[in-house]
Amino acid sequence: MDDIYFEDVTVGAVLHAGPYVIPEPEMMAFAAAWDPMPMHADKAYAAKHGGLTAPGTYLLAVKLKLVHSLPFRHTVIASVGYDEVRFHRPVHPGESVALTLEWTGKRRSKSKPDRGIVTGRYFLSNAAGEVVLSHLDTLIMRLRHPGP
Amino acid sequence: MDDIYFEDVTVGAVLHAGPYVIPEPEMMAFAAAWDPMPMHADKAYAAKHGGLTAPGTYLLAVKLKLVHSLPFRHTVIASVGYDEVRFHRPVHPGESVALTLEWTGKRRSKSKPDRGIVTGRYFLSNAAGEVVLSHLDTLIMRLRHPGP
Repeated sequence: MDDIYFEDVTVGAVLHAGPYVIPEPEMMAFAAAWDPMPMHADKAYAAKHGGLTAPGTYLLAVKLKLVHSLPFRHTVIASVGYDEVRFHRPVHPGESVALTLEWTGKRRSKSKPDRGIVTGRYFLSNAAGEVVLSHLDTLIMRLRHPGP
Repeated sequence: MDDIYFEDVTVGAVLHAGPYVIPEPEMMAFAAAWDPMPMHADKAYAAKHGGLTAPGTYLLAVKLKLVHSLPFRHTVIASVGYDEVRFHRPVHPGESVALTLEWTGKRRSKSKPDRGIVTGRYFLSNAAGEVVLSHLDTLIMRLRHPGP
């Protein structure tokens, strides 16, 4: 699988990855380490309140794991940042989520001829096709054929 | 330490937490699990490229850990989402980061008398006082004294 370089990004094109089934132990360990809210980390509490739900930051991490199943490893230099991060619906352990990535824009860097700026909208959806997480990402990506 | 309820939020007020020193093994384990880019997870590669840097999602998780040292545990119902997430500067293992949270807005929910919507701007800064991460968060927070 060849890496995706700046030149390979077609605005409007859509990529898919996953699905990934949320393991309860992994999700609870993440919550215990980073976001120990009762609805994420306390089974007894959650049992009375609709069941354990995934921390938003865990979903961002799962999204990133799915992104890494796409061939970006050597071409993404950095993320400038995320916009419009939305946690649309709760996700419970045992549910599966899948990634959809739509490229929304690209431009060459004005100052550095070896890279460009690419924007994409990321969606995680559950098995019913409902979006559970979405955000925009602005990436700095290498050119396959850097300019002079 | 009393929990912070909706009524306790004063727009313009600033809260502080931390510092937290980034442990290299923790950061590398996070990168290996979720974001195995060479600059986050490969010491030999990173040694030739300015040193290991923290994944952005790891910094969001560290920010959340610092938020949990503030008393929100029973009052935050959910985050609607983040806006303007920016990864301003690289963070290296062994550096310390501290949290600054400024409340930027609040309003009562129109439909649910037990809660309100609160917005805040979160900053992680390094020991030199340089901002390394910032974002807006829109939270749903419980009222201490719910309306009728």
